[in-house]
Amino acid sequence: MAKQDPDLSPLFHALADPTRRAILTRLAQGPAPVTDLARPTGLSLPTVMRHLAVLEDAGLIATAKDGRVRTCAIVPAALDPVRTWLDDQRALWEARLARLDAFVTSMMKEHDP
Amino acid sequence: MAKQDPDLSPLFHALADPTRRAILTRLAQGPAPVTDLARPTGLSLPTVMRHLAVLEDAGLIATAKDGRVRTCAIVPAALDPVRTWLDDQRALWEARLARLDAFVTSMMKEHDP
Repeated sequence: MAKQDPDLSPLFHALADPTRRAILTRLAQGPAPVTDLARPTGLSLPTVMRHLAVLEDAGLIATAKDGRVRTCAIVPAALDPVRTWLDDQRALWEARLARLDAFVTSMMKEHDP
Repeated sequence: MAKQDPDLSPLFHALADPTRRAILTRLAQGPAPVTDLARPTGLSLPTVMRHLAVLEDAGLIATAKDGRVRTCAIVPAALDPVRTWLDDQRALWEARLARLDAFVTSMMKEHDP
């Protein structure tokens, strides 16, 4: 049981909160200033800033400051490792089903050649 | 910014740990008793049991006790909501790119009809 993918942990951790997922969904539609992101959450600005820091540390968003306005944008490729992990899990599972199928088929042939 | 998907949080939380992901990868290849899952982690049995409880609470694995042996198995369909969320995010992002493309094309036509 290798632990080959430590970089997935901050990604999954960042996605494990409904406010952070809602921010990502909003940003998928285009970049937005922090204040615009905070408004619909009903949360304080410092709380939203903490959520944004978790998303930025995980590489899921990038932020840039222009004067007094900090704008956030998603980094779409950051979700690729999550997709790859899910695909790998499915491949393992399907390979196991294929082995089971082959086993059952061979058992049936043995009993009813 | 709706928070429509509270059930995704325990799933992402369960996946945010390398030991828990390694256990899922092992179980994708077939069911296994708890002691077999614990051995390669180098962790104590109570610690592994806590990880298994997080996975079971999220619906990612099912466990069954036969005599003194508790066996774990993955629930492959439990990852479907994660896949759906990722697909939805990608669809939003691609729709945004399509709108940007259409905008740039219309601007080019306006300037060079």
